[in-house]
Amino acid sequence: MNIKVIIAGPRGRMGSEAVRMVNQEPNFQLVGCIDRKNNGKKLSDIEGLPNLDVPVFEDAEECFTSVKADVFIDLTVPDAGFNHTLLALQNNIRPVVGTSGFSEEQINELTHLATSKEIGCIIAPNFAIGAVLMMQFSKMAAKFLPHVEIIEKHHDQKLDAPSGTAKKTISMINKVREKKEQGHPNEFETMQGARGAKEDGMRIHSVRLPGLVAHQEVIFGGDGQTLTIKHDSFNRKSFMSGIKLAIEHVVTISTLVYGLENIMDINH
Amino acid sequence: MNIKVIIAGPRGRMGSEAVRMVNQEPNFQLVGCIDRKNNGKKLSDIEGLPNLDVPVFEDAEECFTSVKADVFIDLTVPDAGFNHTLLALQNNIRPVVGTSGFSEEQINELTHLATSKEIGCIIAPNFAIGAVLMMQFSKMAAKFLPHVEIIEKHHDQKLDAPSGTAKKTISMINKVREKKEQGHPNEFETMQGARGAKEDGMRIHSVRLPGLVAHQEVIFGGDGQTLTIKHDSFNRKSFMSGIKLAIEHVVTISTLVYGLENIMDINH
Amino acid sequence: MNIKVIIAGPRGRMGSEAVRMVNQEPNFQLVGCIDRKNNGKKLSDIEGLPNLDVPVFEDAEECFTSVKADVFIDLTVPDAGFNHTLLALQNNIRPVVGTSGFSEEQINELTHLATSKEIGCIIAPNFAIGAVLMMQFSKMAAKFLPHVEIIEKHHDQKLDAPSGTAKKTISMINKVREKKEQGHPNEFETMQGARGAKEDGMRIHSVRLPGLVAHQEVIFGGDGQTLTIKHDSFNRKSFMSGIKLAIEHVVTISTLVYGLENIMDINH
Amino acid sequence: MNIKVIIAGPRGRMGSEAVRMVNQEPNFQLVGCIDRKNNGKKLSDIEGLPNLDVPVFEDAEECFTSVKADVFIDLTVPDAGFNHTLLALQNNIRPVVGTSGFSEEQINELTHLATSKEIGCIIAPNFAIGAVLMMQFSKMAAKFLPHVEIIEKHHDQKLDAPSGTAKKTISMINKVREKKEQGHPNEFETMQGARGAKEDGMRIHSVRLPGLVAHQEVIFGGDGQTLTIKHDSFNRKSFMSGIKLAIEHVVTISTLVYGLENIMDINH
Repeated sequence: MNIKVIIAGPRGRMGSEAVRMVNQEPNFQLVGCIDRKNNGKKLSDIEGLPNLDVPVFEDAEECFTSVKADVFIDLTVPDAGFNHTLLALQNNIRPVVGTSGFSEEQINELTHLATSKEIGCIIAPNFAIGAVLMMQFSKMAAKFLPHVEIIEKHHDQKLDAPSGTAKKTISMINKVREKKEQGHPNEFETMQGARGAKEDGMRIHSVRLPGLVAHQEVIFGGDGQTLTIKHDSFNRKSFMSGIKLAIEHVVTISTLVYGLENIMDINH
Repeated sequence: MNIKVIIAGPRGRMGSEAVRMVNQEPNFQLVGCIDRKNNGKKLSDIEGLPNLDVPVFEDAEECFTSVKADVFIDLTVPDAGFNHTLLALQNNIRPVVGTSGFSEEQINELTHLATSKEIGCIIAPNFAIGAVLMMQFSKMAAKFLPHVEIIEKHHDQKLDAPSGTAKKTISMINKVREKKEQGHPNEFETMQGARGAKEDGMRIHSVRLPGLVAHQEVIFGGDGQTLTIKHDSFNRKSFMSGIKLAIEHVVTISTLVYGLENIMDINH
Repeated sequence: MNIKVIIAGPRGRMGSEAVRMVNQEPNFQLVGCIDRKNNGKKLSDIEGLPNLDVPVFEDAEECFTSVKADVFIDLTVPDAGFNHTLLALQNNIRPVVGTSGFSEEQINELTHLATSKEIGCIIAPNFAIGAVLMMQFSKMAAKFLPHVEIIEKHHDQKLDAPSGTAKKTISMINKVREKKEQGHPNEFETMQGARGAKEDGMRIHSVRLPGLVAHQEVIFGGDGQTLTIKHDSFNRKSFMSGIKLAIEHVVTISTLVYGLENIMDINH
Repeated sequence: MNIKVIIAGPRGRMGSEAVRMVNQEPNFQLVGCIDRKNNGKKLSDIEGLPNLDVPVFEDAEECFTSVKADVFIDLTVPDAGFNHTLLALQNNIRPVVGTSGFSEEQINELTHLATSKEIGCIIAPNFAIGAVLMMQFSKMAAKFLPHVEIIEKHHDQKLDAPSGTAKKTISMINKVREKKEQGHPNEFETMQGARGAKEDGMRIHSVRLPGLVAHQEVIFGGDGQTLTIKHDSFNRKSFMSGIKLAIEHVVTISTLVYGLENIMDINH
């Protein structure tokens, strides 16, 4: 297997990691990059990137028609990413896209295009395999242990609380969990906010401290026992094994798949 | 639903919890007990047990023929337990048995008897739902994150290390995990035992301290991330929801099932 | 050393543990009990208590004058406890009292009495040595790592949030911590309460789940690192080593000491 | 306060972080660097370092005599570091040195020189404030809770087990802990190494997994409770606040101090 790959956003924080990963994997070959600047240069001309004789294009269509590739990886922003993905599918190059920013309408359009072209396309909000497993296991556990609280911890430069992953986890759990209000019916706060945010009877707590990176634990309480599922992300490399899995999988399918969990054969 | 239940070992640590649980559940009714002593007494005559007008038998066969029951719970020892289970099946009472002590031959014999009688029978080494989920999730995760270490922690009155649950977890993971030797090929110990026990390339560490009860965490390492699945058992009540689940399930099946995980519909 | 001990509240949850502990320690001797009922009985007459030939009194003064004792342990309620403590001091018996319920005025009165009598008296809101150390270490750490969040976890039968220990910890940290508002100045909650309760710029999060007992972790964030100090209390026995320490210490001092930390020589 | 600083090893992993930290602190001023190459260049000529007009010297003595400085930071290797430190003291520049590699003889020589010159010198094996606090608190806790086990976790590229910090922690605890053999006297391993490495009756467990960075928890067990002191180091920045503290402190003292804990006023 030798999979030829184009990457959009090679100078970005995620993109530059992806360039390194694709370059190191023996079965992958980096054949082109799409960048908002540096048109006509080689990757080796750009500071901080590997010394590779790979052409850089500012125009996505030009890239897709000039370079023969199997897979296109987009790690840019939703607006540009959507156009890149459309163009890749039209040029029979399978997209692997990391974003939670596409609208339902956009996903529908891409789904139809992939189906009619009969080529694979994978879009995932989260490529960290550990985070995806944490959410899947949490959904499974909540059927048997319906008392759930989430503690998510991030560095103190993060502005919003709770995190998107915590909200997504609650929403997934909620699909299977028997409805119930947790805690004692007469419980009360002597300091406002102590019991965290409430969603569907469950609770989320957001810790923000310098030094932390990105961490979440989902705690299930039962009779005389607790079960905890915890994911710690220490740096951006945590997304690379998920992207690798998606590249290997996208060449084997002929439709659009949304969410990394749907290409992971967890149950068998 | 009103399920009539016989319990063997009502004075034991697990048995007395089971008596309390069955007594409190509105759908269950305790109708008899099997005890090595106290023949002919009522449960209410035995110190420390609920004040119930339930007959106590020393002879299992006499109990099964005298009392009309749906389910028989055995929380005694393997030798007595096997005979009780045989007799219960012969008397068309469905057994729920907590033991890891039956031989393969014994399980086969019980399986044939259950099948020919067309009644359910559930045997489980562990009735703690959280522990069963921990092991199942660990098996699922190891396919994607094959670097695994287990830390199990128990009170310092426990004699053997590692725990049976830790060994069982490693054995389950080993069925799906790609074979690999973990750690750096040149790693070395400057103090013997620091890296723990090695099994199939994975590692187990056993902590023994006063104050601890029964705890296990399974840690999966990947690129820039870790996933941890942790079970904390704080007291014997942690087994009761598993026994309850088994009682409700055993009346719906007509064969023998081994292991609580096989009656839990985890994946859907 | 043979210390003669009177215990008030022998049938209570804490009191009955204290009876057992004093009975088991070779250097201690239980010589009398004060109980709201059972006057004139022996301890061996009361169900659930050790089979000891120790007299029980309903009247504290009668107990203190009838029985020769060195130390008096009160594990009842603040109102009765205050009167017991006064009477014990007047009868030259050294009190060890577990309560956070005495008023400043009451503590002043007892302090003067102990000083004028020149006998020791120890009053402590918390006898769990691990909890006391957690609070002391937290106070020490906050001078160097002033970003602090507390997560406290209790069973879901606890009504109030946050716990008294969490509030006490914040209050102790606040004495030494440089004033600062934590988190990003522009941080915001998309779900109310996610960031927990705020006190002096720090944050407290209260988890309530079945299965949990009593747990607290204090997390300090710094540049590229975190320090966590965590106390887990699994059962009431966790108070006994603190009471033992207080009994051994109170016979060596001649004034009143408030707080277990002040009889623990932590720093040397 | 404006402290002029010379740094040796500006291109190293620790050194380059130190260059950035000193450059960002308003009270510090970087005035020179010592590097094995790049003699005569400016810092701005070296790739990957801040764009600063600071002279670089290959010869330490030339640097110390050419540039007027208050403090010298050495983050190189023990051999070079010792010579640099001697020369700095001889030139009345106060050294701050990060190493555990100096011999007792070398430390004695530096101590005498600092004392005779009446200038400060700080040598520390660990500049992570959180790690230093963890060790100090562990030493304090062990007096009251003498049952101790350490779990240290590192990435799987680390060759030796257990870590130097774990050994140092055990050695510090051992100075105050009542001698005792932990665990049950009849405990046994069914898999060799499960109970970890044994030192002075305590146990150390070393986990090595990809994804991990550098973590240690010290667990103390007591009656019905545990106390855990945990340090997580996520990146090299964790050393910078300790180095900053040392720079500010070294200008106020006139002798050599070994160990960051001895300049941290933890107890008051």
